[in-house]
Amino acid sequence: MTAQLFAAPSANKEELEEGLALSPRFDDKDLVTAIVTDARDGHLLMVAHMNAEALNLTLSTGIGHYFSRSRNAIWKKGESSGNLQTVREILVDCDQDALWLKVEVAGHDATCHTGRRSCFYRRAVVVDGTAKLELADDHRHFDPKSVYSDPKPT
Amino acid sequence: MTAQLFAAPSANKEELEEGLALSPRFDDKDLVTAIVTDARDGHLLMVAHMNAEALNLTLSTGIGHYFSRSRNAIWKKGESSGNLQTVREILVDCDQDALWLKVEVAGHDATCHTGRRSCFYRRAVVVDGTAKLELADDHRHFDPKSVYSDPKPT
Repeated sequence: MTAQLFAAPSANKEELEEGLALSPRFDDKDLVTAIVTDARDGHLLMVAHMNAEALNLTLSTGIGHYFSRSRNAIWKKGESSGNLQTVREILVDCDQDALWLKVEVAGHDATCHTGRRSCFYRRAVVVDGTAKLELADDHRHFDPKSVYSDPKPT
Repeated sequence: MTAQLFAAPSANKEELEEGLALSPRFDDKDLVTAIVTDARDGHLLMVAHMNAEALNLTLSTGIGHYFSRSRNAIWKKGESSGNLQTVREILVDCDQDALWLKVEVAGHDATCHTGRRSCFYRRAVVVDGTAKLELADDHRHFDPKSVYSDPKPT
Protein backbone atom coordinates (compact mmCIF):
# COMPACT_ATOMS: atom_id res chain seq x y z
CA MET A 1 0.00 0.00 0.00
CA THR A 2 1.21 3.50 -0.84
CA ALA A 3 1.93 6.12 1.80
CA GLN A 4 -1.07 8.10 3.03
CA LEU A 5 -1.51 11.18 0.86
CA PHE A 6 -3.46 13.35 3.30
CA ALA A 7 -3.14 14.78 6.79
CA ALA A 8 -4.85 14.08 10.11
CA PRO A 9 -7.81 16.41 10.74
CA SER A 10 -6.95 19.67 12.42
CA ALA A 11 -8.70 20.46 15.71
CA ASN A 12 -8.54 24.09 14.65
CA LYS A 13 -11.82 25.07 12.96
CA GLU A 14 -10.28 27.94 10.98
CA GLU A 15 -7.54 25.66 9.64
CA LEU A 16 -10.02 22.90 8.78
CA GLU A 17 -12.33 25.26 6.91
CA GLU A 18 -9.93 27.75 5.35
CA GLY A 19 -6.64 25.85 5.26
CA LEU A 20 -5.14 24.18 2.21
CA ALA A 21 -4.33 20.76 3.67
CA LEU A 22 -6.63 17.85 2.84
CA SER A 23 -7.41 16.52 6.32
CA PRO A 24 -10.62 14.47 6.18
CA ARG A 25 -12.71 14.09 9.32
CA PHE A 26 -13.56 10.39 9.33
CA ASP A 27 -16.56 9.56 11.52
CA ASP A 28 -16.88 7.05 14.35
CA LYS A 29 -16.96 4.28 11.72
CA ASP A 30 -13.80 5.74 10.07
CA LEU A 31 -15.77 6.91 7.01
CA VAL A 32 -16.42 10.11 5.08
CA THR A 33 -19.35 10.59 2.70
CA ALA A 34 -18.54 10.56 -1.03
CA ILE A 35 -20.94 12.26 -3.46
CA VAL A 36 -20.38 11.12 -7.03
CA THR A 37 -21.55 13.17 -10.01
CA ASP A 38 -21.08 12.75 -13.74
CA ALA A 39 -18.24 15.03 -14.90
CA ARG A 40 -20.13 15.59 -18.18
CA ASP A 41 -23.25 17.26 -16.84
CA GLY A 42 -23.16 17.18 -13.03
CA HIS A 43 -25.92 14.56 -12.66
CA LEU A 44 -25.85 12.91 -9.23
CA LEU A 45 -24.93 9.25 -9.74
CA MET A 46 -24.45 7.76 -6.27
CA VAL A 47 -23.64 8.37 -2.63
CA ALA A 48 -21.01 6.14 -1.06
CA HIS A 49 -18.47 6.11 1.75
CA MET A 50 -14.69 6.09 1.90
CA ASN A 51 -12.30 5.02 4.60
CA ALA A 52 -8.69 6.24 4.58
CA GLU A 53 -7.55 3.37 2.35
CA ALA A 54 -10.31 3.97 -0.24
CA LEU A 55 -9.49 7.68 -0.38
CA ASN A 56 -5.80 6.95 -0.69
CA LEU A 57 -6.43 4.48 -3.52
CA THR A 58 -8.69 6.96 -5.29
CA LEU A 59 -6.15 9.78 -5.01
CA SER A 60 -3.21 7.63 -6.08
CA THR A 61 -4.85 5.72 -8.96
CA GLY A 62 -7.44 8.24 -10.20
CA ILE A 63 -10.06 5.45 -10.17
CA GLY A 64 -13.01 5.62 -7.73
CA HIS A 65 -12.61 3.32 -4.72
CA TYR A 66 -15.04 3.21 -1.81
CA PHE A 67 -15.68 1.24 1.35
CA SER A 68 -18.59 -1.16 1.14
CA ARG A 69 -20.39 -1.12 4.47
CA SER A 70 -22.43 -4.20 3.55
CA ARG A 71 -19.36 -6.24 2.60
CA ASN A 72 -17.00 -4.51 5.06
CA ALA A 73 -14.33 -4.29 2.38
CA ILE A 74 -12.67 -1.95 -0.11
CA TRP A 75 -14.83 -1.62 -3.20
CA LYS A 76 -13.31 -0.72 -6.55
CA LYS A 77 -16.51 0.60 -8.11
CA GLY A 78 -17.29 -1.14 -11.41
CA GLU A 79 -14.90 -4.03 -10.94
CA SER A 80 -17.69 -6.57 -11.60
CA SER A 81 -19.80 -4.58 -14.05
CA GLY A 82 -17.07 -2.75 -15.98
CA ASN A 83 -18.54 0.62 -14.99
CA LEU A 84 -15.27 1.92 -13.57
CA GLN A 85 -15.01 5.57 -12.56
CA THR A 86 -12.21 7.81 -13.77
CA VAL A 87 -12.05 10.69 -11.32
CA ARG A 88 -11.73 14.10 -12.97
CA GLU A 89 -12.01 16.32 -9.90
CA ILE A 90 -12.35 15.98 -6.13
CA LEU A 91 -13.71 18.75 -3.91
CA VAL A 92 -14.02 18.74 -0.14
CA ASP A 93 -16.64 20.49 1.97
CA CYS A 94 -16.12 23.14 4.65
CA ASP A 95 -15.70 20.82 7.63
CA GLN A 96 -14.00 18.08 5.58
CA ASP A 97 -16.39 15.23 6.30
CA ALA A 98 -17.70 14.95 2.73
CA LEU A 99 -16.06 14.68 -0.68
CA TRP A 100 -17.49 15.49 -4.10
CA LEU A 101 -16.10 13.37 -6.93
CA LYS A 102 -16.73 14.28 -10.54
CA VAL A 103 -16.24 11.13 -12.59
CA GLU A 104 -16.40 9.65 -16.06
CA VAL A 105 -18.14 6.28 -16.05
CA ALA A 106 -16.83 3.53 -18.34
CA GLY A 107 -18.64 0.39 -19.50
CA HIS A 108 -22.42 0.72 -19.78
CA ASP A 109 -22.40 4.32 -18.50
CA ALA A 110 -24.45 3.03 -15.58
CA THR A 111 -23.67 3.50 -11.91
CA CYS A 112 -26.57 1.86 -10.10
CA HIS A 113 -26.47 -1.90 -9.49
CA THR A 114 -30.03 -2.00 -10.87
CA GLY A 115 -28.62 -1.10 -14.29
CA ARG A 116 -29.77 2.51 -14.31
CA ARG A 117 -27.50 5.48 -14.95
CA SER A 118 -27.97 6.88 -11.43
CA CYS A 119 -29.04 5.37 -8.10
CA PHE A 120 -31.54 8.26 -7.87
CA TYR A 121 -34.20 7.00 -10.29
CA ARG A 122 -37.33 7.66 -8.18
CA ARG A 123 -38.95 10.97 -7.26
CA ALA A 124 -40.89 11.50 -4.02
CA VAL A 125 -44.22 13.28 -4.30
CA VAL A 126 -46.83 13.89 -1.63
CA VAL A 127 -50.30 12.77 -2.70
CA ASP A 128 -53.24 12.94 -0.29
CA GLY A 129 -50.99 13.12 2.77
CA THR A 130 -48.71 10.23 1.79
CA ALA A 131 -45.30 10.33 0.11
CA LYS A 132 -45.31 8.17 -3.01
CA LEU A 133 -42.47 7.45 -5.38
CA GLU A 134 -42.69 7.77 -9.13
CA LEU A 135 -40.12 6.58 -11.61
CA ALA A 136 -37.95 9.42 -12.90
CA ASP A 137 -35.71 7.10 -14.96
CA ASP A 138 -36.44 3.49 -15.81
CA HIS A 139 -33.89 2.94 -18.56
CA ARG A 140 -31.66 -0.07 -17.76
CA HIS A 141 -28.24 0.18 -19.37
CA PHE A 142 -27.52 -3.44 -18.51
CA ASP A 143 -29.32 -6.46 -17.12
CA PRO A 144 -28.18 -6.94 -13.51
CA LYS A 145 -28.90 -10.67 -13.64
CA SER A 146 -26.48 -11.19 -16.49
CA VAL A 147 -23.74 -9.01 -14.98
CA TYR A 148 -23.70 -10.01 -11.31
CA SER A 149 -23.73 -13.32 -9.51
CA ASP A 150 -23.83 -11.70 -6.06
CA PRO A 151 -27.29 -10.86 -4.61
CA LYS A 152 -26.21 -7.30 -3.65
CA PRO A 153 -23.65 -6.59 -6.32
CA THR A 154 -21.56 -3.54 -6.99
CA MET B 1 -46.59 17.94 14.48
CA THR B 2 -48.18 16.56 11.32
CA ALA B 3 -48.69 12.86 10.68
CA GLN B 4 -45.71 11.02 9.24
CA LEU B 5 -45.89 11.11 5.46
CA PHE B 6 -43.78 8.06 4.68
CA ALA B 7 -43.64 4.35 5.42
CA ALA B 8 -41.38 2.15 7.54
CA PRO B 9 -38.57 0.59 5.49
CA SER B 10 -39.41 -2.68 3.83
CA ALA B 11 -37.24 -5.68 4.68
CA ASN B 12 -37.88 -6.86 1.12
CA LYS B 13 -35.01 -5.74 -1.12
CA GLU B 14 -37.09 -5.83 -4.29
CA GLU B 15 -39.79 -3.69 -2.72
CA LEU B 16 -37.25 -1.23 -1.29
CA GLU B 17 -35.48 -0.82 -4.63
CA GLU B 18 -38.31 -1.12 -7.14
CA GLY B 19 -41.39 -0.25 -5.10
CA LEU B 20 -43.23 3.05 -5.14
CA ALA B 21 -43.49 3.69 -1.39
CA LEU B 22 -41.12 6.19 0.19
CA SER B 23 -39.68 4.14 3.05
CA PRO B 24 -36.37 5.67 4.15
CA ARG B 25 -33.79 3.49 5.81
CA PHE B 26 -32.63 5.60 8.76
CA ASP B 27 -29.24 4.52 10.14
CA ASP B 28 -28.25 3.61 13.69
CA LYS B 29 -28.37 7.33 14.55
CA ASP B 30 -31.86 7.60 12.96
CA LEU B 31 -30.53 9.64 10.02
CA VAL B 32 -30.46 9.52 6.23
CA THR B 33 -28.01 11.46 4.07
CA ALA B 34 -29.40 14.47 2.19
CA ILE B 35 -27.59 15.74 -0.90
CA VAL B 36 -28.61 19.26 -1.81
CA THR B 37 -28.09 20.68 -5.29
CA ASP B 38 -29.13 23.95 -6.91
CA ALA B 39 -32.30 23.40 -8.97
CA ARG B 40 -31.02 25.96 -11.51
CA ASP B 41 -27.87 24.18 -12.64
CA GLY B 42 -27.36 21.08 -10.50
CA HIS B 43 -24.36 22.47 -8.59
CA LEU B 44 -23.74 20.55 -5.36
CA LEU B 45 -24.42 22.94 -2.47
CA MET B 46 -24.19 20.87 0.72
CA VAL B 47 -24.46 17.46 2.32
CA ALA B 48 -26.59 17.19 5.44
CA HIS B 49 -28.64 14.67 7.39
CA MET B 50 -32.33 14.23 8.10
CA ASN B 51 -34.16 12.39 10.82
CA ALA B 52 -37.81 11.42 10.38
CA GLU B 53 -39.03 14.77 11.73
CA ALA B 54 -36.79 16.80 9.40
CA LEU B 55 -37.94 14.77 6.39
CA ASN B 56 -41.56 15.11 7.41
CA LEU B 57 -41.18 18.90 7.81
CA THR B 58 -39.46 19.17 4.44
CA LEU B 59 -42.15 17.13 2.69
CA SER B 60 -45.02 18.97 4.35
CA THR B 61 -43.71 22.55 4.09
CA GLY B 62 -41.57 22.39 0.91
CA ILE B 63 -38.75 24.15 2.81
CA GLY B 64 -35.48 22.29 3.54
CA HIS B 65 -35.21 21.06 7.12
CA TYR B 66 -32.34 18.92 8.41
CA PHE B 67 -31.04 17.48 11.64
CA SER B 68 -27.99 19.25 13.03
CA ARG B 69 -25.69 16.63 14.50
CA SER B 70 -23.57 19.27 16.24
CA ARG B 71 -26.57 20.94 17.90
CA ASN B 72 -28.64 17.74 18.19
CA ALA B 73 -31.70 19.61 16.97
CA ILE B 74 -33.93 20.21 13.96
CA TRP B 75 -32.35 22.77 11.67
CA LYS B 76 -34.45 24.89 9.35
CA LYS B 77 -31.68 25.71 6.90
CA GLY B 78 -31.26 29.45 6.43
CA GLU B 79 -33.32 30.51 9.44
CA SER B 80 -30.46 32.69 10.73
CA SER B 81 -28.94 33.78 7.43
CA GLY B 82 -32.08 34.11 5.32
CA ASN B 83 -30.78 31.53 2.84
CA LEU B 84 -33.88 29.37 3.06
CA GLN B 85 -34.29 26.48 0.64
CA THR B 86 -37.43 25.98 -1.42
CA VAL B 87 -37.45 22.34 -2.44
CA ARG B 88 -38.33 21.77 -6.08
CA GLU B 89 -37.75 18.02 -6.32
CA ILE B 90 -36.76 15.13 -4.03
CA LEU B 91 -35.32 11.87 -5.34
CA VAL B 92 -34.40 8.79 -3.34
CA ASP B 93 -31.65 6.29 -4.06
CA CYS B 94 -31.95 2.57 -4.71
CA ASP B 95 -31.69 1.37 -1.10
CA GLN B 96 -33.46 4.43 0.32
CA ASP B 97 -30.73 5.64 2.67
CA ALA B 98 -30.00 8.85 0.75
CA LEU B 99 -32.14 11.67 -0.62
CA TRP B 100 -31.35 14.17 -3.36
CA LEU B 101 -33.00 17.56 -2.92
CA LYS B 102 -33.04 20.09 -5.74
CA VAL B 103 -33.58 23.50 -4.17
CA GLU B 104 -33.84 27.19 -4.84
CA VAL B 105 -31.84 29.23 -2.35
CA ALA B 106 -33.25 32.54 -1.11
CA GLY B 107 -31.39 35.40 0.56
CA HIS B 108 -27.75 35.77 -0.49
CA ASP B 109 -27.86 32.71 -2.76
CA ALA B 110 -25.27 31.20 -0.43
CA THR B 111 -25.51 27.83 1.31
CA CYS B 112 -22.20 27.52 3.18
CA HIS B 113 -21.90 29.12 6.61
CA THR B 114 -18.59 30.60 5.38
CA GLY B 115 -20.63 32.79 3.01
CA ARG B 116 -19.79 30.89 -0.16
CA ARG B 117 -22.39 29.58 -2.59
CA SER B 118 -21.48 25.92 -1.91
CA CYS B 119 -19.76 24.11 0.96
CA PHE B 120 -17.53 22.53 -1.69
CA TYR B 121 -15.19 25.45 -2.40
CA ARG B 122 -11.84 23.61 -2.30
CA ARG B 123 -10.38 21.15 -4.80
CA ALA B 124 -7.99 18.35 -3.78
CA VAL B 125 -4.91 17.89 -5.96
CA VAL B 126 -1.97 15.56 -5.42
CA VAL B 127 1.37 17.38 -5.64
CA ASP B 128 4.64 15.54 -4.96
CA GLY B 129 2.92 12.72 -3.08
CA THR B 130 0.74 14.94 -0.87
CA ALA B 131 -2.88 15.98 -1.30
CA LYS B 132 -3.18 19.75 -1.20
CA LEU B 133 -6.32 21.87 -1.44
CA GLU B 134 -6.72 24.79 -3.77
CA LEU B 135 -9.55 27.29 -3.72
CA ALA B 136 -12.13 26.58 -6.40
CA ASP B 137 -14.47 29.38 -5.26
CA ASP B 138 -13.56 32.15 -2.84
CA HIS B 139 -16.46 34.50 -3.46
CA ARG B 140 -18.26 35.36 -0.21
CA HIS B 141 -21.90 36.24 -0.73
CA PHE B 142 -22.16 37.50 2.84
CA ASP B 143 -19.89 38.17 5.80
CA PRO B 144 -20.40 35.35 8.33
CA LYS B 145 -19.39 37.63 11.22
CA SER B 146 -22.17 40.08 10.49
CA VAL B 147 -24.81 37.37 9.94
CA TYR B 148 -24.19 34.91 12.76
CA SER B 149 -23.60 35.29 16.47
CA ASP B 150 -23.11 31.55 17.02
CA PRO B 151 -19.54 30.16 16.56
CA LYS B 152 -20.78 27.30 14.32
CA PRO B 153 -23.76 28.90 12.66
CA THR B 154 -26.18 27.54 10.13
